[in-house]
Amino acid sequence: MQVTRIDQIAIAVPDLDEALAFYERAFGLTPESRERIDSDGVEEAMLDVGGVYLQLLQPTRDDSPIAKYLARSGPGLHHLGFGVADVADALDHLRDEDVQLIDEAPRRGGGGHAIAFVHPKGTGGVLVELVEDDGAH
Amino acid sequence: MQVTRIDQIAIAVPDLDEALAFYERAFGLTPESRERIDSDGVEEAMLDVGGVYLQLLQPTRDDSPIAKYLARSGPGLHHLGFGVADVADALDHLRDEDVQLIDEAPRRGGGGHAIAFVHPKGTGGVLVELVEDDGAH
Repeated sequence: MQVTRIDQIAIAVPDLDEALAFYERAFGLTPESRERIDSDGVEEAMLDVGGVYLQLLQPTRDDSPIAKYLARSGPGLHHLGFGVADVADALDHLRDEDVQLIDEAPRRGGGGHAIAFVHPKGTGGVLVELVEDDGAH
Repeated sequence: MQVTRIDQIAIAVPDLDEALAFYERAFGLTPESRERIDSDGVEEAMLDVGGVYLQLLQPTRDDSPIAKYLARSGPGLHHLGFGVADVADALDHLRDEDVQLIDEAPRRGGGGHAIAFVHPKGTGGVLVELVEDDGAH
C-alpha cells in the first residue's frame, strides 16, 4: 500500500467562525468550502494551503467524536488524512499487517469521498483518515 | 502575511527506528533524510509525502521538549510547519496581531532553514512552526 499525498490536516475548534477569522487574520488563509456533516456531528471548513487542506472541525452536538475530543484534550491537531488510490485495498493491507482499524469498510466523508479511519492505537498515536484519490483535488 | 504551503507535519515517537519500520510497512513511506539536532534534543526523520514532509521526532535526552511532550501526552501529532516567504516578517505580523510567540526571532532548524515557533496558546491549541521558503523543497 502506498500513501500518495497528504489530503488534509484536521484541527478541532470550539467555534468555527472564530477560528476562520483567526486563520485569515494571522496566516492569510481563507476557506474554499464549508459543509455540515450531520452523520459525524461536525461542521467543517476546508482551507487549501498549497494543495493540502487544513480542515477545521467544530462539533454540532455534544455526543459527536469532535465534541468528546475537545472536552478531553482541548482544541488542536485532531487527525491526519492520507490520500490512497483505493480505500478498500488499503484497509485490506492494514488488516493483513494487524493494524487496528476504526472503519472496517469505506464510507462517505465530506465532499462525498470514500474514506475510512485507522485507530490511533494502530499507528503510534495518530488518528489517520484514508481518503480515496479521485482526481478532485 | 501569507502561509504558502504546509512544510511539515511533525509526529512525536518514542523510537524512531520502530516508527520508520511501521510507516514503511503500513503506508509505503520511507525517509528522505535523517538528522540529529542536539540543540533541540531530537533525532528527526523526514518522509516526503507528495511534497509535504512527515517529520518523525524522537527525543535524544529526557529534558528535551519532545521528551516532555511524550511524557505528558504520549506519542502522536506534535506540530504543524507552515511555509512562509520570510520568517522575520511573519513574526512581526503575528506580534502586530497579538499572537503569542515562542521564538521572538528566527533561528536555524533542521536542514539549516530559518524557523520560528508560535505558541499554541496563540493559535487555538496548535503548535505552529514557521519555515522559510528557500526553494530547497
